[in-house]
Formats: sequence, structure tokens, C-alpha cells
Amino acid sequence: MQLLNIVKIGGNVLEEKGLLERFATDFTALEGQKILVHGGGKAATRLSQKLGLTPKMIEGRRITDADALEVVTMVYGGLANKNLVALLQAKGCNAIGLTGADANLIRAQKRQHPTIDYGYVGDVPDGGVDTHQIGTLMQGGLTPVFCALTHDGQGHLLNTNADTIAATLAKALAPLYKVCLTYCFEKPGVLQDANDDNTVISKIDTSLYQQLKDEKVIFEGMIPKLDNAFDALIKGVGVVKIKHAANLGNNIGTDLIN
Amino acid sequence: MQLLNIVKIGGNVLEEKGLLERFATDFTALEGQKILVHGGGKAATRLSQKLGLTPKMIEGRRITDADALEVVTMVYGGLANKNLVALLQAKGCNAIGLTGADANLIRAQKRQHPTIDYGYVGDVPDGGVDTHQIGTLMQGGLTPVFCALTHDGQGHLLNTNADTIAATLAKALAPLYKVCLTYCFEKPGVLQDANDDNTVISKIDTSLYQQLKDEKVIFEGMIPKLDNAFDALIKGVGVVKIKHAANLGNNIGTDLIN
Repeated sequence: MQLLNIVKIGGNVLEEKGLLERFATDFTALEGQKILVHGGGKAATRLSQKLGLTPKMIEGRRITDADALEVVTMVYGGLANKNLVALLQAKGCNAIGLTGADANLIRAQKRQHPTIDYGYVGDVPDGGVDTHQIGTLMQGGLTPVFCALTHDGQGHLLNTNADTIAATLAKALAPLYKVCLTYCFEKPGVLQDANDDNTVISKIDTSLYQQLKDEKVIFEGMIPKLDNAFDALIKGVGVVKIKHAANLGNNIGTDLIN
Repeated sequence: MQLLNIVKIGGNVLEEKGLLERFATDFTALEGQKILVHGGGKAATRLSQKLGLTPKMIEGRRITDADALEVVTMVYGGLANKNLVALLQAKGCNAIGLTGADANLIRAQKRQHPTIDYGYVGDVPDGGVDTHQIGTLMQGGLTPVFCALTHDGQGHLLNTNADTIAATLAKALAPLYKVCLTYCFEKPGVLQDANDDNTVISKIDTSLYQQLKDEKVIFEGMIPKLDNAFDALIKGVGVVKIKHAANLGNNIGTDLIN
């Protein structure tokens, strides 16, 4: 099977010009097929504030009302996605910017919840990814760059978390490619000591993961991130890496293995 | 040669929900290959105002400074383009939203002018359109939906007038397809009497065009629009139509012929 690198970067990388340049160079140099998935939450929050909109949160999750959907459509689908595509093109990477609506690549359903109306938030069901069409684009020499938007097939865009899109693509494409899923974030990897960047744990398997959780080495926000990552591994993704965006071109980081 | 319909709609169509729905249905029903090009100037002006930006104009042309480029990137590339794609998908048209940066489809140069700095405005040189890649997307069953953004290949997006993008695509693709270029605007066609929508001139060739200009039947803003259209005809585009967006599915409108 062919290698497929799926790399996710957060909105913070998009904010730092030097880091973004370096990342784009390293991403372009990756061999084999590749897909980029990006966030953009910081810029979306900034635009919301400029427009005088108040972010609506319930239980720590952003509620996407009609105004918020407009903002993320502008920021994720326009500002972040198209500037990233232009930058990658300048590096020689033949990028094509996409939402899930484009070519019907990722179809989602508006989130159903017994008590909370999350608004225009989409969850991707099994079979929601058109893996054939994505494969066709990549075989044509294109590098898909996905933002955190999907659609419901009935004319509505939906906001879908970028981490989730990356994991969803990885799981859907795992039967067709040898998938390596890399999450880039603001730390060099999973740390033995959260305050010391020199304590990166280079490999974690499911049993070590359980142990690290029991020892409270891994805690808070890292747990849902790693739960997602291990779920991807169980569903056929070969390897999941967690690393700093500056280290895409080297081996520093944490490899999660099944 | 295969038929290729290239249809341009202005920002005003995007503002009217009922009209847009009807247009999307009619566009989806068009046979053969097709490309949609859209503007979005009204929404861009509205966002600029909300953000407290003052539009900069020189000699009636919008100057695109860095702030204005951000606005059009958000509105054209994000809000307008992605909502249009989602709407077309709901109608059964397998749309893919694009800027010129995506897949390096339309490469432009920052406008050079002896006295005016237009800012981030792009002119497309001969050879700037990747007709092969556009053909590949269409043969794969996709319908390209272009907004009014191009790129310079050096990491910068550029603002390029949507009418110009439509004409540029039509001329570039004319050697490969039997191209029909349709400009949709707010009138039912070129009118004998500008105040009477029932006086549509059904066909205009170059000699009648000259006569209508001499008689001042055609004047002001229609002249550059029609000059562009006749230029496209001279450069191999089979037919150019000028009609109301509500009439895409019928024969009401003006056909320009060489």
C-alpha cells in the first residue's frame, strides 16, 4: 500500500509566520501522498470580537449559531484555507483547498443531543467520506488541504472540529493507504514532565497509555486528544504522531502505536 | 468538441435567496460541462463597513490593500464560494469551490501601472490558466465554481474581477471546448430602451454593436462589459449571452455573435 501522511495543524501555527513557513517547507518535502487539515479558531475568535459577536459556549464547546457559522466559513474556508494553499503553491506543493462540501468529500449530520442545541455543528457518520474522490484528486498530483467545515447535503455548511476531521479522514482512508496521522501542536510531544520540553516520551502503546493516565502523567486536555488517536490506531491507522509543528521534518515527537 | 457552459453571476444574485435557489436549479440542469464564476462585492462592502474599513477607490476601481484583500479572501473564497457549493451540492451538482491558487489553476501578476498602485490586484497573463487541470476536474464529474481570487505563485492571493475571470477562462478553454459564456446581471439583456425590460435585443453582432454605440442605445457601464464579450468572441468563444439570472433556464436574453 502507498504511504499517506495526514497532518493536522492548529490555528496557532497559522498565526506564527516563521513557524508556518518552516512547516510549509517541511510538509512540501514529505514523500508519498499527503493531506493537510487545519484549524483557525484563534482568527475566528478575533473576527467574532471585531464584529461584536459574543462566543457562545456550552460545557466548554463552542456553539455555532448562524453568525458563528458565517465567521468560521469566512475564516476557515476563506482566509486560513486560501492563504495556506497560496503558501504551499509557492513552496511547490500543488495544494487544493477544500471543505467537506467541495466535491461532496465529507458529508456530516447536524449534531443531535438530548438537551444541548450545538447549532451548525456536524458529526461525520460512517461512510461520510468519499475516499474514492479524495484518491482521484491525489492521484492527479493534488494535495488536499481541508479546513474544519463539512456539509449536510441539504445546502448547509457545518462546523466540524479539525482534530476530528483529521482522524475521520485517517480512519476512512486506512483500508486504502498506509496512513500516518500527525497532530502538530504547541509542545514537542507527550511529556513525562509537563513543564520540561526535554522529556518527550518517544513511543506510547495502549498499555503504557493506561499506565501514564493512572500515574497522572497524562491528564486534562491531552486525554480526549489521545483517546481519539488510539481510536484511530484501533481502526487501522498505522501510526499516530504527536509533535510540534516545527518538528515535522525531524524525528522529535511521540509515536503512538497499537 | 464538447459543449462547455461558463456562467458568471454577480454578487446581487447571491443576496436574493429565491433568485439564487432558482438559478442554482437551472444551472444544475445545464447539460454538458460547466463552470460557475461568481462575484460577491456587495457582501465584501458590507463586511468592510462592519469592520470599520473605508473602501479605497481610484478612478472608480477598488484598491485592494492588505485589509481589503483579507476581506475579499473571507467573503469571496469563504462565505460566497462555500455556501454556493453547498447549495449546488443540495441540487445534485457536484460542485468544487476554487480560487486561482487552488491546484494552481489561475496564475496572475500583480497589476503594474505607471502611477496607480492598485494593491493586491491580479491580471492574468496569456497561459495563466491551467486548462489541462480544469479539464481533468470536469472529466472527473466535478463542476468548478470559481471566485474572484487568483494568486501570483509566490504566496500571495490577488483580487481579480469576476467578469474578467469568466472571460479569461472562456478564452483559454475555447480551443478545447465549444464554449458558451453567459453573463447574468440584473437586466434581462441588452435593451433597446434602457427603461423598458420588454425591449431585449435578441442578437447583436459586431456591426450592430457599433451601430448601437453610435446611436447611444448602448452606453456607460455596458460598453466595457460588451467590449470584453466581443473580445472573447474574437478569441474563439462561440457565443456570449447576456441575461438575467432568473432566465438561465429559458431563451430570454441577448446573444452576442461574431
